[in-house]
This record gives sequence, C-alpha cells and structure tokens, in this order.
Amino acid sequence: MKYFALSLALVLLGLGESAHSAGAGDDSAPAASNVPGAPTPAIHPDRSITFTLEAPDAHSVQVAGGDGLGKGPFPMTKGAEGHWSVTTPPAVPGFHYYWFILDGVSVSDPSSESYFGYGKETSGVEVPEPGADYYAIKPVPHGEVREMWYLSKTTGEWRRALIYTPAGYDGNPKTRYPVLYLQHGSGEDETGWSRQGRAQFILDNLIAEGKAQPMIVVMDRGYAAKAGTPAVKLAPGSSPAEIKPGFAAFEDVIIHELIPTIDASYRTIPDRQHRAMAGLSMGGMQTLFIALHHLDMFAYVASLSGPIVPDPDSKQPLASTPPAPFDTHTAYEGAFSDPAAFNSRVKLLWLGVGTAEPELFRDRIGAAVQALKASGVRVVYFESYGTAHEWQTWRRDLNDLAPRLFR
Amino acid sequence: MKYFALSLALVLLGLGESAHSAGAGDDSAPAASNVPGAPTPAIHPDRSITFTLEAPDAHSVQVAGGDGLGKGPFPMTKGAEGHWSVTTPPAVPGFHYYWFILDGVSVSDPSSESYFGYGKETSGVEVPEPGADYYAIKPVPHGEVREMWYLSKTTGEWRRALIYTPAGYDGNPKTRYPVLYLQHGSGEDETGWSRQGRAQFILDNLIAEGKAQPMIVVMDRGYAAKAGTPAVKLAPGSSPAEIKPGFAAFEDVIIHELIPTIDASYRTIPDRQHRAMAGLSMGGMQTLFIALHHLDMFAYVASLSGPIVPDPDSKQPLASTPPAPFDTHTAYEGAFSDPAAFNSRVKLLWLGVGTAEPELFRDRIGAAVQALKASGVRVVYFESYGTAHEWQTWRRDLNDLAPRLFR
Repeated sequence: MKYFALSLALVLLGLGESAHSAGAGDDSAPAASNVPGAPTPAIHPDRSITFTLEAPDAHSVQVAGGDGLGKGPFPMTKGAEGHWSVTTPPAVPGFHYYWFILDGVSVSDPSSESYFGYGKETSGVEVPEPGADYYAIKPVPHGEVREMWYLSKTTGEWRRALIYTPAGYDGNPKTRYPVLYLQHGSGEDETGWSRQGRAQFILDNLIAEGKAQPMIVVMDRGYAAKAGTPAVKLAPGSSPAEIKPGFAAFEDVIIHELIPTIDASYRTIPDRQHRAMAGLSMGGMQTLFIALHHLDMFAYVASLSGPIVPDPDSKQPLASTPPAPFDTHTAYEGAFSDPAAFNSRVKLLWLGVGTAEPELFRDRIGAAVQALKASGVRVVYFESYGTAHEWQTWRRDLNDLAPRLFR
Repeated sequence: MKYFALSLALVLLGLGESAHSAGAGDDSAPAASNVPGAPTPAIHPDRSITFTLEAPDAHSVQVAGGDGLGKGPFPMTKGAEGHWSVTTPPAVPGFHYYWFILDGVSVSDPSSESYFGYGKETSGVEVPEPGADYYAIKPVPHGEVREMWYLSKTTGEWRRALIYTPAGYDGNPKTRYPVLYLQHGSGEDETGWSRQGRAQFILDNLIAEGKAQPMIVVMDRGYAAKAGTPAVKLAPGSSPAEIKPGFAAFEDVIIHELIPTIDASYRTIPDRQHRAMAGLSMGGMQTLFIALHHLDMFAYVASLSGPIVPDPDSKQPLASTPPAPFDTHTAYEGAFSDPAAFNSRVKLLWLGVGTAEPELFRDRIGAAVQALKASGVRVVYFESYGTAHEWQTWRRDLNDLAPRLFR
C-alpha cells in the first residue's frame, strides 16, 4: 500500500496548485517568479521580501543573492515546526538571483522557478517596478521564441540557439526582417534573455506600439571551445589574453556558422545594414570583440554593462587597477581611429551601464564614452538609474536600444 | 576590492566550462543532463551512478529519486574536506528525477540541469540505453519547438504552450499539417515533453526516416481552474469527482481556446481526421476524459500510463482497492458501448504501460485493454519492457505511437 499511495501522490501532485495566498502577511503577494502555488518568496508593498524554507533538522539557513537584494547573506530564523523565515530589506525593483545557504551549502529554493545563472540552475525573485510595464505580457500581437539546434564544426557539438520571430512572421511569408544577435552574460546561457530578460515581451510591446521595427532576435549560447581543445578555464584575475581563445572560438561560431545558418533558415535581410549585435556583461565584451572586428557584417553595435577591454591581447588581469587608459587610436585594434569613417560606417554604437554597478563597469564604460565622444566618435550612452549589474538594467537597456535599430 | 573581485568572478564565471573529466573514476562519464562542465552525476558502464555534493558542514546527505534509480534513499558518505558521495546500484536506462536530502531538506543538485517535476524544479539524470538512439539528436532536418502565449478567458490567465513544428514548416508555406495534442504528467508542466521527453528529437528522427507523418505537436500546460475559482486541491485519496473540476476547466481551455488558437495560428488541417490527443499519466487521464467526450474533434486517442477512471463522477478514492471493474458498456459515459460504431469512428485507440509500473497503472490498464478487446473495440496495447512510471516508458510510447498517427 505504501507504494500504491506513493504512486498516487505522484499522479495527483501538481494538480494541487493552491490559490495564491500570501505566506507572509496580508499585504504581500507571491513573486511572479515562484512555481505555481508557492506563497513565498512574497513581495511586500515596500519591496521587502519574505523568504521561507521548511527545514526542521537544519542548523543554519541564510538567504543570499544579487546586489539588488541588499547586503546579505540574511540569516533566517527558525520558527515552529522547522519553518525558517526572514524578511529582507526593501529590494531594488527587478529580477534578482538568490539562493539559500543551508548548513553551509548553497541550494535553490524549491518554491522558485529556476533560471540559469552562475553556471548552474539558480532561484530568482521578480520584484515589480512601479509604473513600469514595458516588459509585461500584454494583449498585443505576440512573436514566438523558437528553439533551433545546429551542429557546429568549430566546437564539434550540437548547439542550441533561441530565436525570437516577431508577430506576423508566419502570416507574411514574403516579408524579410533585420536581425539582432543578442548575448547573455557570463554564468548564464541562451535562455537568459527570454526567461530573466523577458526580451520577447519587450520587443512585442515596442513593435505593437510602432516604436521598434519588427526584427528577428537570435539568442545564442556564448560559450565555445574549438573541437579537440579544452574549454577555456578562467578565474578572477584572468587576463584578456587568457579569455581570448574562448571568444575567438565563439567568433568563429557566430560569423561562420550561426549567421549563415540563420540567414538560410529564416527570412532575414542578410546584409550589414540589417544586422546588429548586442550583449550584456560578458556578452558586451564579446560584442565589442567580435562586431568591431567584423564591421563588414554589423552596422549596429551595443554593449550593455560590458567591461571595456581596449586590448584583447593584454596579459594584465582584467580587474587590474588603475585600468589602462582608453586610447581611441589603439583600442579595439584601431576600430575608432578614424572617427569620421567610423561614423559613416556604423549606424549605431551604444554603450550602457547601471548607476549602481561596480567601478569595473561604471567608471571604465564612462571613461570610454568620454574618450570616444571627445575624439568625435558618435556614441549613444545610456544610464539605468539605481540599478546594479542585474537584469533590470538590461531590460531597460533593450527597451532603449531596440527602437534605435534598423532606422 | 572584495566587491571588485566578486564582480569579476561574476563576469568570468561560466566561461570556465571544464573539460568533461569524470569525477567518479576513469570508466564513468558525466550525465548528459548535467550542467556544462559538472563531472557528476557520473554514469558507469554498468549504469551505476556516482553522485557527489560539497557540504562540509552538513550532518546527513542522501540521494533519492525516481523508481528506476533503485530503492533509495541512498545515504552518502562524507569524505575529505566535506566531499559527500555515493555510487548507487545500476539504474534502469532512461531519465530519472532525483534530489538530495540535505539535513532533512529535499534540494536540487547544483550539478544538474533542472526539470519541472513534482510541482517544482527538480534534478534529473540521463542514463543511456544501450543501442537506443531514437531519442538522440542526429544530423537530420530538425523541427522547432516554439513558445506560444495565449490569454485564456476560462482561467483568466496568460498560458504558455510549446509547439513543435516539423522540419520544412517555414520553407513550405502552403503545406498544412495534422496536429497531436500531447500532455505531460502531474507535477510536470508544458516543458516536460521537450526537455525530459525529447519529443522533438523522436519526431525529427521518425519523420526523417519516413516512419511518421510530418505533424505539429502542441504541448500545453495541463492545469486549469475557472477564473475566480480556487485551484482544485488534491491529495492522495482524492476521488475522480474531486479531480473533475480541474479536468473540466482544462477541457474548456483545450476545446474552446487552445484548438481554435492553434488552428488560427498554424497551418493545421483543422478536422478530426487530422487531430490526435495523447498524454502520459495524468495527461492520459485527461486525454480519455476529454477526447472520448469530443470524438467529433479527435480521431486518434492515446493514454500513456494513464490511470483508468471508468466513472469520472465516482466518489471512491482513485486508489481504492479492489478497483471498480471496467464495464465497457458504461465506462467513459458509454463511449465504447457500440464497438462497431467506435471502431469506424476512431482511427486509433492506443493504451500503454511500463512493465515495471505499479499495479495502479499496470493492472488496470491491462484489464481495460482485455475488456475492450473482448467487447470488440479495436485497441493497440503497448508494453514498455522493464521501465517504470518514468520518461523512458513515455519516450518509447511516443516512438511507437507517432508512426500510427494520421495514416
């Protein structure tokens, strides 16, 4: 009978989505990032967050996470029957990765959906931003996010890319579209922009309002190692020269495999005037590394919170202080050395950063923008007010960037 | 500097995909279900599996999971520097959910991708089946899995369905396709068939070999509650009558919302001869509940390990023993009462079960098949040898079922 009951529980489990009752007081609501029916994490009106975990036998439970959650880890308190809980200080609006530290081990919250970050499946909590609905799903025509697999000769592996096709793509089989190649950050993967970033809803809304051109968005996996070679192993303190082989392999994938595959599989406009590359953090580094080397293929280039690496062959640790000065004549192998030529060729150079990001990002991106502007290079600079090196910065970035593309 | 280093770690993390070295001895290989670079779980040639967890401060760690892993939980042993490990007995081939029990709390393995099961994100381990490659990704033309959102008036919520379109769908804009509606099991969601089930690769391979008709496959979320009503709460011991409101709400969604949306959005052949419904476990129950009530809409009906519920209004617990006899005259509101009429109308009735499944599934499905055959109802019965109430059963089921559809 035990087995029978167990099997029955398996059969019935999941039908039992409970009503979304608050688990943390009447003024709170379950986060949209929870699994269906889970009452916590619960967001209070002041954006403080209540986290809970049932752990009768645990000795210590803490919650920790992304910068916007505050300076954790936050110790949780054991209540009746092993119910641990804590209400953290008001959080910055947006999406924050988080995890529990359960007797010393970082584990996901069984109440949260999971999101690929930090190189593994990670919990996330969505804190609504008052008045901001540009990333909400709305009753407008929706595009699709499609899973596409392709065999890479460069890496010797099957790779998955996610492809956003705009509303109307299927219904207008003669229409061709421009393409944005949009990269995730380090520790994340090809699912980041659609799951954490809600890129498809941002685009759906912009396109429905006539603010952005209908476009295809290609979200590929930003890791690559040439077949037969070990994957690039990096650690804090790695230098651009050490990073380069991984970026170079990814460059080969995107230039020689992904773009031809996309142009053959989707109704693209396959020229540089209708092709953009953008990425966040590591993806921003990759965008500058790759697109500035291939301006014959991209007319739009955007780095979202991407660390500035003027010299990809530098053996200095990426984080060395003071940073090397940004010399517009030599940076990125001289891509900016002739501002007039650059301006006539590149329709958009876009750099952005959150005002709450660390110096590595904020100061260096700001310095590069200043130097570029002083030299006469046309650059759009966007600051996301009050947000850290997190997804709300990059959602805002995309909302600013997409309308500027393919005009 | 601490913050700086932390940020840099964030930037660089994830580039460091290590080579796939075994973490459990030279004869083992990391499971394909691991996050990239994670050496464990590692599968040995005899299909025993080594699990590890770094947990220096933990007092007790066990691993537990699906039936095919063996009779757990398996206690793990603490080694040097808090490295816990265990090698479990040889597992049944296929995909098994699993989790760690860390000081009494069930948590996911940070080394595993996560898969939605048991109503939450759950770890999974893929154990290769010797000689079976029908669910492998191969160099054949690939279809796409697309994410489609639709607003349900029935439930008052945005719902997501995943849609498989076969290879060539975009390239042949005048071709129309039959549709299989394919449901997950309880505790799972709309991602189950593509992630755990690898349905897209099974279909790609069958279609490429000419064994199955090119078809669209719609994988919807099997949970629904009418807007303004609480979700149906179930527990082991619930009766069909208690389950019914949730199934009835889902019936409204699929019949009145999903099918019209699919027929309007994709190039379907919108008639019953070109529409099938199938599902596993709870999804099989739903298929029999819904499709047998709407034979004007479905000509193909398949229940994969679906508990047989002859009377949807029964107030007897689903698991009550002995089960009510399967009376072909009254079961499913008389759908089978005229075998000749049923046979001429329904092109395929397909029932399947794994030989290692519990009685709830095996005996009742077998008894129903016997009774149906004795009454003259044409039914295909498929047994998956040696597999339990797990995904390898359902992969094999789909591989048998899909070639029989739309002939």
